[in-house]
Amino acid sequence: MSAAAGIPDLPVAADVEAAARRIAGHVHRTPVLTSRSLDKTFDARLFFKCENLQRVGAFKARGAANAVLALDGETAERGVATHSSGNHGAALALAAANRGIPSWVVVPTSAPTVKREAVSRYGATVVDCPPTLAGREAALEAVVGETGATIVHPYDDPWVIAGQGTAALELLEDVPDLDAIIAPVGGGGLISGTGLAVLARHSDARVFAAEPAAADDAWQSLARGERVRLDAPDTIADGLRASIGLRNFLLMQTVVDAVIRVPEADILPAMQTIWERLKLVVEPSAAVPLAALRHGQPDLRGLRIGIILTGGNVDLESLGLRTGPASKPSSA
Amino acid sequence: MSAAAGIPDLPVAADVEAAARRIAGHVHRTPVLTSRSLDKTFDARLFFKCENLQRVGAFKARGAANAVLALDGETAERGVATHSSGNHGAALALAAANRGIPSWVVVPTSAPTVKREAVSRYGATVVDCPPTLAGREAALEAVVGETGATIVHPYDDPWVIAGQGTAALELLEDVPDLDAIIAPVGGGGLISGTGLAVLARHSDARVFAAEPAAADDAWQSLARGERVRLDAPDTIADGLRASIGLRNFLLMQTVVDAVIRVPEADILPAMQTIWERLKLVVEPSAAVPLAALRHGQPDLRGLRIGIILTGGNVDLESLGLRTGPASKPSSA
Repeated sequence: MSAAAGIPDLPVAADVEAAARRIAGHVHRTPVLTSRSLDKTFDARLFFKCENLQRVGAFKARGAANAVLALDGETAERGVATHSSGNHGAALALAAANRGIPSWVVVPTSAPTVKREAVSRYGATVVDCPPTLAGREAALEAVVGETGATIVHPYDDPWVIAGQGTAALELLEDVPDLDAIIAPVGGGGLISGTGLAVLARHSDARVFAAEPAAADDAWQSLARGERVRLDAPDTIADGLRASIGLRNFLLMQTVVDAVIRVPEADILPAMQTIWERLKLVVEPSAAVPLAALRHGQPDLRGLRIGIILTGGNVDLESLGLRTGPASKPSSA
Repeated sequence: MSAAAGIPDLPVAADVEAAARRIAGHVHRTPVLTSRSLDKTFDARLFFKCENLQRVGAFKARGAANAVLALDGETAERGVATHSSGNHGAALALAAANRGIPSWVVVPTSAPTVKREAVSRYGATVVDCPPTLAGREAALEAVVGETGATIVHPYDDPWVIAGQGTAALELLEDVPDLDAIIAPVGGGGLISGTGLAVLARHSDARVFAAEPAAADDAWQSLARGERVRLDAPDTIADGLRASIGLRNFLLMQTVVDAVIRVPEADILPAMQTIWERLKLVVEPSAAVPLAALRHGQPDLRGLRIGIILTGGNVDLESLGLRTGPASKPSSA
C-alpha cells in the first residue's frame, strides 16, 4: 500500500493475504455452518461464515488486529483511537491490549449498553460523544490532540479493509466453488475487503452488498457515481448506520456486483430465522444478507452462496427476552 | 451388548466407539468453542461441545441414528416408534427418514410448539398424548400394537446410550486432557453414555451430572441407591423432566462422580450468559451445567472442564422475543 499526493492509499488483493498472515493466531478462524432446512427454504446452498463467534463477537476483530499489528513500534506506543458504534471500538481495544498499548474509543451516547460495556471491558478508555457524525469527529480530534494516538478509522482505512477481507478469504478456502458472497454494508470495510479477497482467490463468486433500505447510502452512492452521506439514519441494524467511506466507495465501484436494499421490516424476522434454524445469536446487522435473499432479486436460486454473519453483539433485554437477573457466579 | 434373562442389556465402553463408527456421516461432528471472558468469570478453562449445532438441534440425533442403523433390515421395515418431549422424537424421525422407514412419535400435548413442529417436519407421524408418564406409555403401546414398529426409548436403551456417548468421545478427542465433564441429566442417556466415553478414552476426567433441583430424581436415586421416579416435575428445563431409566441408573452408579442440583432460578440466567458470551442459542436444559458451576460445589476452579451444550430448540416467542412476524421468503 502506498499513497501518492491527493490519491488515497487503497489496499489491493495481496494486502488481504498479507493481513491473513499478520493476524493469524490473534483472531479465531471461525467455522462455516450449513443448514439443510434453510437450504430448502431458500432453494440454494447457503454457507454461513460465523463471525459472530469471532473474538469480541464480530469480524471487526480482524481489521483492528491488522491495523494495530502493522504500526511501527514508536507509533504504536502512543496508542490508538477511534470512534465507533461499538464493535470496532471493542475490537480496537482488544487489539491494543494484546499489543500492550493504550486505546481511546469515542462512543455515541445512543450506542447499546452491551457494546459500550464491551469496549471498556477490553481495556479502552471510553469517551462519550453526541450520536452524530460531527459529534463523533470533534470528540476524536480532541482525543488525538491530547494523546498523539493514531486514528484507526472503523472502515475508511486500508489496513482495516484488508483485515476485514480475511473472513471471505477463509470462507473461500473452506468452500472454494461459491457462486456468490453476500455481506452487509455499513461503512464498507467488510464489503470492500470481501471483494479484494475474491480477487485474491481468483474466485468467480459475485459479490453482493446487503443494505437496510433505511440507510441506503451505498446504493445511492453507486447509483449516482458519487459518494452520498446520511446523518444518523433510522434502522434497527445499528452496525450499518455509518455512511460509506471514500476508500470503500472507490473499491466498491470495482469489486461489488450490486447493492441489495432490504426493507426494515424484514431484518428482525431474518434475525429470528438465524437464531431458530442455525442456533446462533446474531445481531440485526448480521441478518441483513439473509433478508436480502427473501425477495429473489437478484435471483440466486440453485446457487452456492456464502453469507457473512458479521456479529452477535445484541442487547437481549432490548428485544424483550425474559430470563431473569443477569448471571454472576458467586465468589464461593 | 447381550441380555441374559432378567438382567437388562447394558452397553459398555466399546459400544460407544462402535456407535461413533456407525453414525459417522449421519450426524455432524460439532465444534468445541471456548470463551476467554467466560473462563475469567468462572476461573476455569471451559470447553463447550456444541450439540445445539447438531442435526435436529440436539445431541439426540446421535443415539437415534445409532439405534436405527443397528436394526436388521426386516425389523427396520416395520418402522420405529417412541414417546418424547421433542428432541428425541425429531431425532428418531430424521434417522428413520434417512433409512427410508416409517416412524411414529408420541408427543405430550404440553410440549413446546417448536419441538412438535420439528417432529412432523422430519417426517414422523405425530400421536398426541396427555403430559404424564402413564399417558405416554399407553399411547405408545397402542401404536406398536397396530404397526409392529420397534420402540426406541428416548434414554433407557443400550444403543441410544452408546450413541449419546459419542459427543463426549469427540470432545475428548479434541481436548484430551480434561479434568471434568459436566452434562445435564434427564432420563440419563447422555450422562451414562458420557461416562462410558470417558472409560473408552481412558480419560481421568471426572463425570458430573447437572440436574434441576426441581426434577432431582437422579440425585435422589443415587443417594438412596434405588431408582426414584417423579411424575411431571416443574422445571423450565423441559428436556430434563424425564425420570432416569433403569439402565441409566445402573450405569450412573458406576460412571458418575456426583450429581449437582441447580436452583430453578439459576437456569435462565445461565442460558442468557451462553447466548450473550458464546453467541449460541441454547435451550434451558443445555444451560444447567453452566448454572451448576455457579456455586462452586464441587469446587472446580482452575480446572479444564468440558461442558456439553445439549440442544438449541427453544421457543423464542415464549421467552418474549419481539421480532415481528415469522420470516418466510416470498415465492418470487
